Amino acid sequence: MDSTIKKSDFVQSLEKGLKVISTFDSDNPKMTLTEVAKRVDLTRANARRILLTLQYLGFVQTEDGKQFSLSPKVLSLGYSYLSALPFQELAKPYLKALAEEVNESCSMSVLDANDIVYVARVQTNRIMTISLGVGTRLPVYATSMGRVLLAGLPDEEVQKLLKEMKPQQLTPNTIIDIDQLIKRIQLVRERGWALADQELEIGVRSIACPVKDKNGLTISALNISGHASRVSKDEMLEKFLPHLKSTVVQIENAIHKL
Amino acid sequence: MDSTIKKSDFVQSLEKGLKVISTFDSDNPKMTLTEVAKRVDLTRANARRILLTLQYLGFVQTEDGKQFSLSPKVLSLGYSYLSALPFQELAKPYLKALAEEVNESCSMSVLDANDIVYVARVQTNRIMTISLGVGTRLPVYATSMGRVLLAGLPDEEVQKLLKEMKPQQLTPNTIIDIDQLIKRIQLVRERGWALADQELEIGVRSIACPVKDKNGLTISALNISGHASRVSKDEMLEKFLPHLKSTVVQIENAIHKL
Repeated sequence: MDSTIKKSDFVQSLEKGLKVISTFDSDNPKMTLTEVAKRVDLTRANARRILLTLQYLGFVQTEDGKQFSLSPKVLSLGYSYLSALPFQELAKPYLKALAEEVNESCSMSVLDANDIVYVARVQTNRIMTISLGVGTRLPVYATSMGRVLLAGLPDEEVQKLLKEMKPQQLTPNTIIDIDQLIKRIQLVRERGWALADQELEIGVRSIACPVKDKNGLTISALNISGHASRVSKDEMLEKFLPHLKSTVVQIENAIHKL
Repeated sequence: MDSTIKKSDFVQSLEKGLKVISTFDSDNPKMTLTEVAKRVDLTRANARRILLTLQYLGFVQTEDGKQFSLSPKVLSLGYSYLSALPFQELAKPYLKALAEEVNESCSMSVLDANDIVYVARVQTNRIMTISLGVGTRLPVYATSMGRVLLAGLPDEEVQKLLKEMKPQQLTPNTIIDIDQLIKRIQLVRERGWALADQELEIGVRSIACPVKDKNGLTISALNISGHASRVSKDEMLEKFLPHLKSTVVQIENAIHKL
């Protein structure tokens, strides 16, 4: 983020519009003009113009002209990002080869606020072989990819992120203590991989490694997940980790040539 | 969409900013200022201010100050929509009950341009029971839910949408002829359900019904999918369709009370 933008370069109404879109959530799926103005800290006149413009553009809808809600077109904005991801298409064949090698599902994800978001996924042992699940979001604290992505951030950012979120005890194994999570993330930095043992759901183990750009910045995480009854923790480390690491090297080589 | 917005109410820079986000895609994941200006039909000065503002807000990133690309924060916009969907949370328990009744995966989706987007999904016969796949996109022409959602649109819109997209022969069963697709959609309107028989992928059959609002507008589609070797077309119609229909009635009753 560039904090040096000149005031004359800043398009304030664009910021306001994006804030209006982001202010809708599960607690506030429908809002009146007054509610939107209050939540985004706008004048009523400003909120009205933004809502009318978003409605005209198809991003917001209203049945009665009073209660506004987002419309599915908003999804297309997020999809612009997914379809424009330069490394997603490139990584897919490597992901597929890895999934075939280990005969388990493999995924690639990026960080977005408190979630990891799947940008590619190859599933095995399923009725469908096409890659469902792109766009899927999972909590960052309970997943191997989440901890790998957090490990790629500076310490202050990790602390800020973890303090803002409220980890939930999804299984008896979920680590919800912030200090313990920070220790785990430091361990990920030392080792270069993360293992999540039935922390998201009983029965699911996964192991993840970071994918880094030319400058050493973590841009994505890659994982293999398997059923706990089929794959022990030791097997994950002995059998899967070497394959995962060599796939990461191949993907990084391809990305660095971009 | 309201076509009667007054010129004085229209926030043009918001429109421009959203157009800039949407202009990135798989063919143009990284663009220079000049390229963005050209594609969105902006002056260089305008494009510059918008890119700098989006960069400041964290929606756009640049490594060298010349090539710009979208950043994962863009996904959070789409997620605002998903988390704010009033009927998503409400529908989940019904979806879960349906999946248990028929012992097959059930999904709910909405239409976004040429795709259906999963807003809820309950999967069976899988290692994971948590609902993966929300946000997943599948082509509208090859899916039962896609055809149900198209059937809910006026004829001109269906024709326009189908003519803009390029259906691909995903399996030998995929219908790619526009006229034949339109006939199928008319059939969906008459029958109230759509069946896709291995058109997206060999081995997968699915049946879908529309979920309508108080005014009779289709707001979502509900489906049951199963492996072709386990469930015949006749079984889908005889065993699954009645359960699907009664679940739709329950969900509609709950939605109409909102």
